[in-house]
Amino acid sequence: MSEYAIGVDLGGTNLRVAAVGAEGRILAQTTRATDVARGRDAVIDELCQASHEVIERMRREDGARALRGLGIGCAGIIDSETGRLVDSPNLPGWNDYDVKGEIERRLATPVLLENDANCAALGEQWLGAGRELAASGDKTSGAESEPTSLCLYTLGTGVGGGIILNGRIWRGANGMAGELGHVTIEPDGAPCACGNRGCLERYASATAVMRLAREAIAAGTRTALREIAPAQLTAHAVFDCAQAGDGAAKKIFAIVGRALGVAIAGLINTLNVPLYVIGGGVSAAWPAFAPTLFAEVQQRSFVYAGTTTFSAQSAGVIVQQGRGGRRRFTRIVRARLGGDAGIYGAARLPLLP
Amino acid sequence: MSEYAIGVDLGGTNLRVAAVGAEGRILAQTTRATDVARGRDAVIDELCQASHEVIERMRREDGARALRGLGIGCAGIIDSETGRLVDSPNLPGWNDYDVKGEIERRLATPVLLENDANCAALGEQWLGAGRELAASGDKTSGAESEPTSLCLYTLGTGVGGGIILNGRIWRGANGMAGELGHVTIEPDGAPCACGNRGCLERYASATAVMRLAREAIAAGTRTALREIAPAQLTAHAVFDCAQAGDGAAKKIFAIVGRALGVAIAGLINTLNVPLYVIGGGVSAAWPAFAPTLFAEVQQRSFVYAGTTTFSAQSAGVIVQQGRGGRRRFTRIVRARLGGDAGIYGAARLPLLP
Repeated sequence: MSEYAIGVDLGGTNLRVAAVGAEGRILAQTTRATDVARGRDAVIDELCQASHEVIERMRREDGARALRGLGIGCAGIIDSETGRLVDSPNLPGWNDYDVKGEIERRLATPVLLENDANCAALGEQWLGAGRELAASGDKTSGAESEPTSLCLYTLGTGVGGGIILNGRIWRGANGMAGELGHVTIEPDGAPCACGNRGCLERYASATAVMRLAREAIAAGTRTALREIAPAQLTAHAVFDCAQAGDGAAKKIFAIVGRALGVAIAGLINTLNVPLYVIGGGVSAAWPAFAPTLFAEVQQRSFVYAGTTTFSAQSAGVIVQQGRGGRRRFTRIVRARLGGDAGIYGAARLPLLP
Repeated sequence: MSEYAIGVDLGGTNLRVAAVGAEGRILAQTTRATDVARGRDAVIDELCQASHEVIERMRREDGARALRGLGIGCAGIIDSETGRLVDSPNLPGWNDYDVKGEIERRLATPVLLENDANCAALGEQWLGAGRELAASGDKTSGAESEPTSLCLYTLGTGVGGGIILNGRIWRGANGMAGELGHVTIEPDGAPCACGNRGCLERYASATAVMRLAREAIAAGTRTALREIAPAQLTAHAVFDCAQAGDGAAKKIFAIVGRALGVAIAGLINTLNVPLYVIGGGVSAAWPAFAPTLFAEVQQRSFVYAGTTTFSAQSAGVIVQQGRGGRRRFTRIVRARLGGDAGIYGAARLPLLP
């Protein structure tokens, strides 16, 4: 009998609930506003009602499918072992609340709680960049048929990360692995709110792009960025300027690409997984930052230095053949699932064998 | 019936062969000079003779033990899947030679080939820093009974690395994971022979310590380093100066500690394993570089920043309590097995369940 799971994307402003088949298709879904201000219990009520509604719809329309469980992706520090929220910026007052236990009681199905960036990484591995690579056949590489290990960067307001090793989320000793946005890129670099200096997040987030644009303007640079009204100065507006050929804007994305290149080369030297995926809003600026990213990885990745043929394909795929025993290719690609990665990954949690 | 395996440390100058019991004790061993100049076949002959000798001794003295196989640790790029040497600096002319196949034919026992730094990491996990931590009980941490995941840095002429995840060597897509010495620490730093700039190896190897000492002397610094004859200027001599209070020498080890701190904080943010082990000759200078290392990790590790109580114990152990779901401790410690780590790890390969 075919199976499905409920994936929940519990954000600060939206609550999305979807029934996802074991084959990776969304079968039913609903989206509601998350009214965090109404308090924890109201949000849990809403989540359970929405899930119940989707489960009931599945029962009516696809009654042969068995429900495997419910996976919830959520920002912040999650204890996926106990299913408690340790600290979530979007959900104040939920600290150490037993989300898993409460929802399991109400819906009578197994519940798994996971950090949203980890969910997105799992989603991309299952149905996005990972599956696309597997489906391409990749005859040239002699690679395993499915890249079951990948690292995901999510470039948004901050920089999130997720690491999938052998098809599973790598959580680390206390569930804090994959904090890729706070890896030091420049030891003496810009201070970060986390207490460090020179974190990747300070160079590759939307916030960083806007900061660099404001700095360029303040420095008196001749740039089209000056013509943007302060309220309209978004990372996307800076990207538009770069695409139009503005030198200062192009320089900003060279900084983004360099920081990502240093970070990804470090991961290649450390983990040597076959796939690095870049998602989040700033990934739309791929054409502006990818060339610098490639150049940095080529210089800084020991595994591939000197033996590499780099080809930045139109699809934004970097292909490298490295030294090392099995000569396999490494790819750095854009995320494929956009805002759906998290909900697919959340649904994947109870479906994992 | 109890079992054992043969571990082989195939270095550029020495060939060590040991019988290691499944319980982790060396039961018999022999060491010979590796006369690489006599060519590949002579070295393979020597390796097989020495192994045969140890196996025969085991048969006579401990006949109840069954041989599980033979593990070989070797510098360079190894294809552990096929058991071929892809490229080894110490063994020129061995490229793409089927070491595994040849020795299996001669000794009629399964053979596994592995990079020496990976072997050392596995050895430390099995019988060194990993076991010590497990044996300590570690009641305060609520940690798992055995730290089965760790990262090892070997600070020698270069900087090697090895990553153990869940008790297994993490090799990556083409066997090149764990090249921790070539992770970028300073994007605009000193050029490295690998083609990159600012690799960890440029700041934390014995070669780096000597380079920094020569630079301090050349810069006209008033330092006791000047009194060392050029031929005597080793990393250990620089450490002796630092211990005697010499400012320039102390500064050099602050650079070592800072580079290691940036690197390890990056690993904590990425992998969040509970144990980081520092071995190799330069690790003897631990008292000189550890304070800076701790300070850097405290600042740069997102997982622990702000929530950490650091206590650099006399044993050189750093204890951190992090945020994250399961509040577990992370330790950065000196390697425990010295030059034996590699041979224990090599023997562990065929003994792994």
